[in-house]
Amino acid sequence: MSHNTFGHLFRVTTWGESHGPAIGCVVDGCPPGLQLTPEFIQQFLDKRRPGTSRFVTQRQEEDKVRILSGVFEDDRTGGPVTTGTPISLMIENTDQRSKDYGEIRDSYRPGHADYAYDQKYGVRDYRGGGRSSARETATRVAAGAVARQVLGGGITLRGAVVQIGPHAIDRANWDWSIVEQNPFWCPDAAMVPKWEAFLDTTRKAGSSCGAIIEVVADGVPPGWGAPIYGKLDGDIAAAMMSINAVKGVEIGAGFASAALSGEDNADEMRRSGNGVAFLSNNNGGVLGGISTGQPVVARIAIKPTSSILTPRKTVNAQGEDVDIRTKGRHDPCVGIRAVPVAEAMLACVLADHLLRHRGQTGR
Amino acid sequence: MSHNTFGHLFRVTTWGESHGPAIGCVVDGCPPGLQLTPEFIQQFLDKRRPGTSRFVTQRQEEDKVRILSGVFEDDRTGGPVTTGTPISLMIENTDQRSKDYGEIRDSYRPGHADYAYDQKYGVRDYRGGGRSSARETATRVAAGAVARQVLGGGITLRGAVVQIGPHAIDRANWDWSIVEQNPFWCPDAAMVPKWEAFLDTTRKAGSSCGAIIEVVADGVPPGWGAPIYGKLDGDIAAAMMSINAVKGVEIGAGFASAALSGEDNADEMRRSGNGVAFLSNNNGGVLGGISTGQPVVARIAIKPTSSILTPRKTVNAQGEDVDIRTKGRHDPCVGIRAVPVAEAMLACVLADHLLRHRGQTGR
Amino acid sequence: MSHNTFGHLFRVTTWGESHGPAIGCVVDGCPPGLQLTPEFIQQFLDKRRPGTSRFVTQRQEEDKVRILSGVFEDDRTGGPVTTGTPISLMIENTDQRSKDYGEIRDSYRPGHADYAYDQKYGVRDYRGGGRSSARETATRVAAGAVARQVLGGGITLRGAVVQIGPHAIDRANWDWSIVEQNPFWCPDAAMVPKWEAFLDTTRKAGSSCGAIIEVVADGVPPGWGAPIYGKLDGDIAAAMMSINAVKGVEIGAGFASAALSGEDNADEMRRSGNGVAFLSNNNGGVLGGISTGQPVVARIAIKPTSSILTPRKTVNAQGEDVDIRTKGRHDPCVGIRAVPVAEAMLACVLADHLLRHRGQTGR
Amino acid sequence: MSHNTFGHLFRVTTWGESHGPAIGCVVDGCPPGLQLTPEFIQQFLDKRRPGTSRFVTQRQEEDKVRILSGVFEDDRTGGPVTTGTPISLMIENTDQRSKDYGEIRDSYRPGHADYAYDQKYGVRDYRGGGRSSARETATRVAAGAVARQVLGGGITLRGAVVQIGPHAIDRANWDWSIVEQNPFWCPDAAMVPKWEAFLDTTRKAGSSCGAIIEVVADGVPPGWGAPIYGKLDGDIAAAMMSINAVKGVEIGAGFASAALSGEDNADEMRRSGNGVAFLSNNNGGVLGGISTGQPVVARIAIKPTSSILTPRKTVNAQGEDVDIRTKGRHDPCVGIRAVPVAEAMLACVLADHLLRHRGQTGR
Repeated sequence: MSHNTFGHLFRVTTWGESHGPAIGCVVDGCPPGLQLTPEFIQQFLDKRRPGTSRFVTQRQEEDKVRILSGVFEDDRTGGPVTTGTPISLMIENTDQRSKDYGEIRDSYRPGHADYAYDQKYGVRDYRGGGRSSARETATRVAAGAVARQVLGGGITLRGAVVQIGPHAIDRANWDWSIVEQNPFWCPDAAMVPKWEAFLDTTRKAGSSCGAIIEVVADGVPPGWGAPIYGKLDGDIAAAMMSINAVKGVEIGAGFASAALSGEDNADEMRRSGNGVAFLSNNNGGVLGGISTGQPVVARIAIKPTSSILTPRKTVNAQGEDVDIRTKGRHDPCVGIRAVPVAEAMLACVLADHLLRHRGQTGR
Repeated sequence: MSHNTFGHLFRVTTWGESHGPAIGCVVDGCPPGLQLTPEFIQQFLDKRRPGTSRFVTQRQEEDKVRILSGVFEDDRTGGPVTTGTPISLMIENTDQRSKDYGEIRDSYRPGHADYAYDQKYGVRDYRGGGRSSARETATRVAAGAVARQVLGGGITLRGAVVQIGPHAIDRANWDWSIVEQNPFWCPDAAMVPKWEAFLDTTRKAGSSCGAIIEVVADGVPPGWGAPIYGKLDGDIAAAMMSINAVKGVEIGAGFASAALSGEDNADEMRRSGNGVAFLSNNNGGVLGGISTGQPVVARIAIKPTSSILTPRKTVNAQGEDVDIRTKGRHDPCVGIRAVPVAEAMLACVLADHLLRHRGQTGR
Repeated sequence: MSHNTFGHLFRVTTWGESHGPAIGCVVDGCPPGLQLTPEFIQQFLDKRRPGTSRFVTQRQEEDKVRILSGVFEDDRTGGPVTTGTPISLMIENTDQRSKDYGEIRDSYRPGHADYAYDQKYGVRDYRGGGRSSARETATRVAAGAVARQVLGGGITLRGAVVQIGPHAIDRANWDWSIVEQNPFWCPDAAMVPKWEAFLDTTRKAGSSCGAIIEVVADGVPPGWGAPIYGKLDGDIAAAMMSINAVKGVEIGAGFASAALSGEDNADEMRRSGNGVAFLSNNNGGVLGGISTGQPVVARIAIKPTSSILTPRKTVNAQGEDVDIRTKGRHDPCVGIRAVPVAEAMLACVLADHLLRHRGQTGR
Repeated sequence: MSHNTFGHLFRVTTWGESHGPAIGCVVDGCPPGLQLTPEFIQQFLDKRRPGTSRFVTQRQEEDKVRILSGVFEDDRTGGPVTTGTPISLMIENTDQRSKDYGEIRDSYRPGHADYAYDQKYGVRDYRGGGRSSARETATRVAAGAVARQVLGGGITLRGAVVQIGPHAIDRANWDWSIVEQNPFWCPDAAMVPKWEAFLDTTRKAGSSCGAIIEVVADGVPPGWGAPIYGKLDGDIAAAMMSINAVKGVEIGAGFASAALSGEDNADEMRRSGNGVAFLSNNNGGVLGGISTGQPVVARIAIKPTSSILTPRKTVNAQGEDVDIRTKGRHDPCVGIRAVPVAEAMLACVLADHLLRHRGQTGR
């Protein structure tokens, strides 16, 4: 992972600014012969799209993806398939409201990357956050759809929100079947109305809140990943931390494992059919950086949106103390729309490790 | 980061198994002209060395580092200096007790990488954990010493243990000056006796416990790091997750930021001298993946040592259900000796980003 | 260099097929603050454009480049400048004649990549050569224009054709000023009419011919490049060999150096002003993989276009022996249009090494 | 390829200076379960070892390789096998004559990397050429032995010298069986006495000469390599150019293809058994960067050794004009000992592409 590229064999390069003509990505190293259509990719983009409920930004971005290369339809293949060459995906930016960017052009929004970009580059595209905008994550979701085709049907990849603000779900209530039935990707039916009330209050106050997301991959075979700096969980950590507003990543029991005893933490094993069954999954499906065959489980912490209506102290480019309010159509809780993004990043990391494992071992 | 190499311009490749003839690393891309002696590196290795108190493993490894290349002393240079060519560092393994590895040769220790390695490779060096042993971290500490020379005197890089088992320090008591005065790298004097009692109990019970470590780099200038997949915190996350037994990484307020309001979370700014002062550091010194000039703060969760005396359920290579007790001289809390390792990884990541930033921007 | 990406700090990823909707590239790692407009890039694309003389393909491709990201115009900067974020460049394919691809769909053109692609991927976009088409080189030329801005005015980067078919120029006649005055990028005025006659004959016969190109960078300071696998000439070799139809690369005296004596080959030095002057340049400006301050000189051999009208023996996808003639509008000598491509590749390699050298040494 | 590392999945990092305590390499990404012993590696090192005839340097280096990691012998495996973890190989430097390096310490030898290193780094290990010494190539030969195990018995990898000074072999006389029977790796029996006489003259005159080497891999299946910047021949070019004193690389007909007609150059195909037979191999086994199943053929040009007894003009570190004679035990023709090196580099590139191809396509 470096620059604007991640992955080693399954490799994704993203480009584009929030208010430029388009955003996009190049997916390189994809195996040949996989079915891939814009419609397949679109369904994942639609999950991330703004404007789908009152709890997310009201911007209207169609986020229509185009496949510009790497997929070919021939009458001898059963539909458009990948050719093994780079897949270029592009999404045009349609809702770039013409407006006065004066305030964010000159003043650094606290909690945003504005100040850091200016310190680094001496210049930045301030329109809508430019390159640091979460809009970039749409391209990852598109890449993640390709990754899912690489992984195939044997791997189920899902995400849910497990905490919004201070309100954490009760894991005993976990029900995957309701996750797509509410606007929060919440797996705990009892928590839905509480989050609804909390988010309405937050939104009306012009404030924002954070969240914790959990993503799970079932069906990952044992053996993916590698010591020491090619660890599956090392790559997951980097991939998740690259998502906007993420401030923490944990695998399996994560930070809670610090308080466990050695007896409670070690996941015991018993034979099961032709393989083994683990009696718990504190390791989150990864030991020594290598998958164990258990579900791969990662959680990420997402900080509150920094774009709030409450005036905050800051400085401007001229070095003066000023106050700033961030107007505009922002998500009160960016964590919600980050679910498909985290799923996509996990899919990409797993696809990369599938190919890397196959390359080294031939299995 | 991939395979056994991490870093982009300042690049570290490690090799070696716990019970092979030696372990080592190659540090590539180091700037020329930096002073470097074995003695300088040794001081950091000594901080990680086993056998220094009753709270860490009683193995006796001298961990003497040799510099095999990349450093040259000429009467025109003021002492041995780096030449810009790869620096090969080697530590011979001296305490490889001859013993019967029968049990761990055949049975997979729960919580260890044994099973995952066998699933991946079909073969493994089981002696002392082989490549998955924490012994490998000695080579990172050596590399980290080189990285500190790259960073120079303007950056202070320190670590502390902030939680052992369920016992977290009181951050109000934080005192860096006592960290090196107790066997736990504990910054809270009031906590030292509690950890002492807790660890004695744990050790006598043949059990183990986890920990949380915090590492801080003061003096990092604004502008290091880069969007999107070259983020400073993305690289920190991957680097930390590569350390044995780490199950979580967070930056700044980390997971706690999920429960903060947007108002509380955004770090406000005021001008200060020629620059800016932040009124809080919830971002942990990184915004948009780029350093802000504030202290860079990361925390990692370390699970309890899996090597415990209590018998645990497992399977053996023949697919039979067995019980296993891991005898031998193990750390009851690997978190303690992980402090110099986490410092070293942070040093390496920062050194790499110094060079990358300088490469792109010329600053 | 791997996949469809080359470069380490200045990094170019290309995508697109000959007859897809578009081709393009992403230039990542570019320093911020450099002036960049579509018009600046276009002048280099126009040098490579088909249809400019009767000696190159008569296809009509406008090759209009669009900048989709990474460049921003603000009233505080003097015109559109790079922001340090990825620069996405796109060229739409406009001359995709609807036609029957039956013959090249099923039969492998000798000397083309058709057979190799099918063996590798089991599927290929056969329209116009798909990904293996020289059309891809347009995107490198665009990237090379960005690289020239990185290098700045102190470096002069030029190319010329030094041999077409069996007809080599007389180096004693070398005159850079006529290179852009003839359709062959020929630096030897006496050779122009000979090539004209030779190419007319070749073209009318439905045949094709090869060429040798020389590219020269003046003004490269000493110190760029690095041992051992980061050698400047190693990267030049890889970059040149990636150009379609290139079968050989040499630096300085190249293959001729095998026949020189040690005395004749070693470039002697004498002091000159504050630096040194070399009395010859057999090394082509590179020693030990590092630039010496002399002109960097590379030559590449380009095989004859494989698309010829003479029927050639081949097999088809069904495994039958067939004969094939490649109709269509092809370059009789692809070497001619490869000049701006080779210049671009040299520019990209040098820009990358500028940044890498600066990163490691701070100079 | 960058820094001191090459390869993508099969990855080699080398370190060490000519007169330091040792040189070595780390081979990472090797598949598990391959037989590997020091003795197997040693046979290839012995082919490169100095002092084997009067035509190579008379230095006495035993070049004994040690395997420090990545190989494990267990009674369940049939002998020492690779474990999939990094293989550290080390060769101690035994013949470091204590001597006065005054002259080469201060004066830049023409044709050597001395001046370039000093310009880049401001410091260098001048003893015996330090990092720029061809001694480094011993580590590649060791790595190449590992690569040969990855490739397996189906691929035959051989090299020969085809020209020394101005004396080229007659390819009609090519006989692989005599290559190991003469001190020049010469495949043309008639040429052996001519080279003998020529080299004796050259050596006695204190001069040196260049050479051209050809390496061939038979048995490479079609499909290895990849467009566009992952081309098999692109990687071969970079790998070959990284060898000391190499100034040119060509594939198949190489530079000669510039003078061929399109008809003569395109390798025609006919079906043959279940596959195809090519009627010629001008492409050198690679089309579009992908192997065709034909023998992979590369040639490299090696310049004359720069270390000659004839005084040459140069400057010293103080900027004064001086003359220099390079005494010591040098190869009159480094090309001879480069044969096993070129073979090793080809083996490493092919092993890497085997894994990369398998990773992407599963074949």
